[in-house]
Amino acid sequence: MNEKRHTLHDTRLMLLEPEELSQRLDHIDRAMNQARLDTVMLSSAANTYYVSGRVFCGFAIYIKSLRRFLWFVRRPSMLVGDDVHYIRKPEQIPEMLSNLGISVSNLGRVGLELDEMSFNHVQRQARALGIGEFGNADDVMSAARAVKTDFEQRQLKLSGVSHEHVYRQIPRMYRPEMTDIELQIEIERVSRLEGCLGLFRVSGPDMELHMGNVLAGDNADAPSPYDFAMGGMGASPSLPVGADGTVIRPGMAVMVDVNGNYTGYMTDMTRTFSLGQLPDEALHAHEVSRQICAELARMGHPGVEAKLLYDKALKMATEAGLENYFMGHRQHAGFVGHGIGIVVNELPVIAPRSRDVLVAGNVIALEPKFVLPGVGAVGIENTYIVREHGDMECITNAPEQIRILGDGDEV
Amino acid sequence: MNEKRHTLHDTRLMLLEPEELSQRLDHIDRAMNQARLDTVMLSSAANTYYVSGRVFCGFAIYIKSLRRFLWFVRRPSMLVGDDVHYIRKPEQIPEMLSNLGISVSNLGRVGLELDEMSFNHVQRQARALGIGEFGNADDVMSAARAVKTDFEQRQLKLSGVSHEHVYRQIPRMYRPEMTDIELQIEIERVSRLEGCLGLFRVSGPDMELHMGNVLAGDNADAPSPYDFAMGGMGASPSLPVGADGTVIRPGMAVMVDVNGNYTGYMTDMTRTFSLGQLPDEALHAHEVSRQICAELARMGHPGVEAKLLYDKALKMATEAGLENYFMGHRQHAGFVGHGIGIVVNELPVIAPRSRDVLVAGNVIALEPKFVLPGVGAVGIENTYIVREHGDMECITNAPEQIRILGDGDEV
Repeated sequence: MNEKRHTLHDTRLMLLEPEELSQRLDHIDRAMNQARLDTVMLSSAANTYYVSGRVFCGFAIYIKSLRRFLWFVRRPSMLVGDDVHYIRKPEQIPEMLSNLGISVSNLGRVGLELDEMSFNHVQRQARALGIGEFGNADDVMSAARAVKTDFEQRQLKLSGVSHEHVYRQIPRMYRPEMTDIELQIEIERVSRLEGCLGLFRVSGPDMELHMGNVLAGDNADAPSPYDFAMGGMGASPSLPVGADGTVIRPGMAVMVDVNGNYTGYMTDMTRTFSLGQLPDEALHAHEVSRQICAELARMGHPGVEAKLLYDKALKMATEAGLENYFMGHRQHAGFVGHGIGIVVNELPVIAPRSRDVLVAGNVIALEPKFVLPGVGAVGIENTYIVREHGDMECITNAPEQIRILGDGDEV
Repeated sequence: MNEKRHTLHDTRLMLLEPEELSQRLDHIDRAMNQARLDTVMLSSAANTYYVSGRVFCGFAIYIKSLRRFLWFVRRPSMLVGDDVHYIRKPEQIPEMLSNLGISVSNLGRVGLELDEMSFNHVQRQARALGIGEFGNADDVMSAARAVKTDFEQRQLKLSGVSHEHVYRQIPRMYRPEMTDIELQIEIERVSRLEGCLGLFRVSGPDMELHMGNVLAGDNADAPSPYDFAMGGMGASPSLPVGADGTVIRPGMAVMVDVNGNYTGYMTDMTRTFSLGQLPDEALHAHEVSRQICAELARMGHPGVEAKLLYDKALKMATEAGLENYFMGHRQHAGFVGHGIGIVVNELPVIAPRSRDVLVAGNVIALEPKFVLPGVGAVGIENTYIVREHGDMECITNAPEQIRILGDGDEV
């Protein structure tokens, strides 16, 4: 398989190599056993992409006992392959199953996407299948997707390389008297030219964003409705997060958190910039953020409870005298990291009451950040792979120190 | 109220003027009567924005008999106002209601957002309230939001003016040997500098997009999984729509459909460009698209069935000998227009089996487009307001003719 870019004009529904699909099915089977589900019915973009390597409109029905997918496709119109069937509506599925010699009762206990799909969408699927009871396929899929295969890890690393290349250029994108929004627009442009798809795929209703955020000075302390680590007032009450038009001035921290979706798999990276030197307290907090990342990367072995990473981060922030500024000041985020992949908020969650336990193949963004009144947000975010042996591997390797805007040298 | 931009640092939850809120409540009350609902409980971004003028995380409970909202807010942390209550989770709501002298049984028949919120989200809300039966608040809200107030119409017109200003500059954004993606990136940048928020708010699972699409040549004929008028292969099977990296060449139609979200209210506009003159058949099809728009704008009076507009468009395409190319060639879209506002796909739907009837205040994007093999996509899209008297009013007024890329003159 061409790992850099799939063949776009391939008409096969299944774009995953058999070996790759098999690994993902192993993940899914394991999660289905745990959830006691026999069949899952998937239609969200993230899940159809995970099981086929492409987004399509329709339904993927996976029957564990047969280790077989049935594909019921509405669009696009040209897909071919084993068990690919075109439908107009889900109500046609039972008869088509029956033509294949499969009755709905053969499906056993069915899981539908209860976290991702709307109430009416789920109800319609259940009625179409004639099932009164169903489990949660999203429990299965989020558990499966939390453990990245080698192929997926390579997609993430490729995103990380492009992401890093963009971030290295940020200082020279600055022009005098720029606002935070204007700087963000230049970063967006360079990201897009580098191959960033722009789309920022999220799970759940509490996240809306356009590509990422640039937070300059005290705007970082503006509370936002969304479930991100940082806030910002935004440019409109219809999207109240991120840059608000602040002119970048000396003494302000400028935090850049623009997402890296270069391969369908996203990396998260944050770096801090400034005009001239920031106050000592800000430099100190920034160093503490780096130390927390480094320490958590050392702790992040398979078998470690995710909440211990959070506890450690909070402890280090507290010992540094920075707990009031940790993960926000006027409003605090309740986590210090999160899984990432096809969607920006995957498992595991690095939070105080997380029940997740790290396993090899988890990919985690760690973002211990501080908001200092009068200065702004400082700290870093990196994306890491949990490995079987050794520390977590950082895949977002732009320089971590606070860099000076306007500085034309690549570092 | 500052109509251009709300005061971002206003801490009042309610950003709508009393008169504006009152008009929206009239719409909501009418739709609730029709849906036989006594209370609606809202938490989606589009609906909380509609009823308060800002996006917040939490729940807006509207009790029709009291004509009163109760606001249960999780984030942001600083909102104030009548009936604003902070909660951590929806399970706290019944007790807080009770403290206000309202029992759940007083709520009558409750509507939840069954189209917009996930199955589990809705179930949790219903359990929190202790209600076994509930109706669909989204039926109410989509009906209410389909009829824009004067204030909303002004927001849409402001978006249209900025949108037009960007589109007028497109010819001079072109550089020789540009790909469709590169041209799109320059349009995105100019849009963002003009104030475009970037976010493209959609309803339903079958739409994913980054800001819009540029379709060059035969890529317009690539079927997409999404429910848009046009397709395009896209740059990745994880986002299979739009520009695919085609180098723009003479003889290709270049269709630009980049959204105009400048005020929280979106306009849709499409224009077609080329290098040098296109073949006569393409010029003809483009003119037919303009004629269809003009004719539908004349037909679009209050009381007219939406499906009649679709029928008329199809009839005009057929009479012009273009029915095979109408709304796609290899794959056809099933509509020729759609309501637009806070979300890009609102009511009414201009489609063959639509049951919608136009009313004054509807805002509708009409996009009769043609895909000609060997040339690409031609035609236009405009956003119109349905008025009490007279034809629909076009609010996206960039020049409609096919314009030459590289031409530096503003027209």
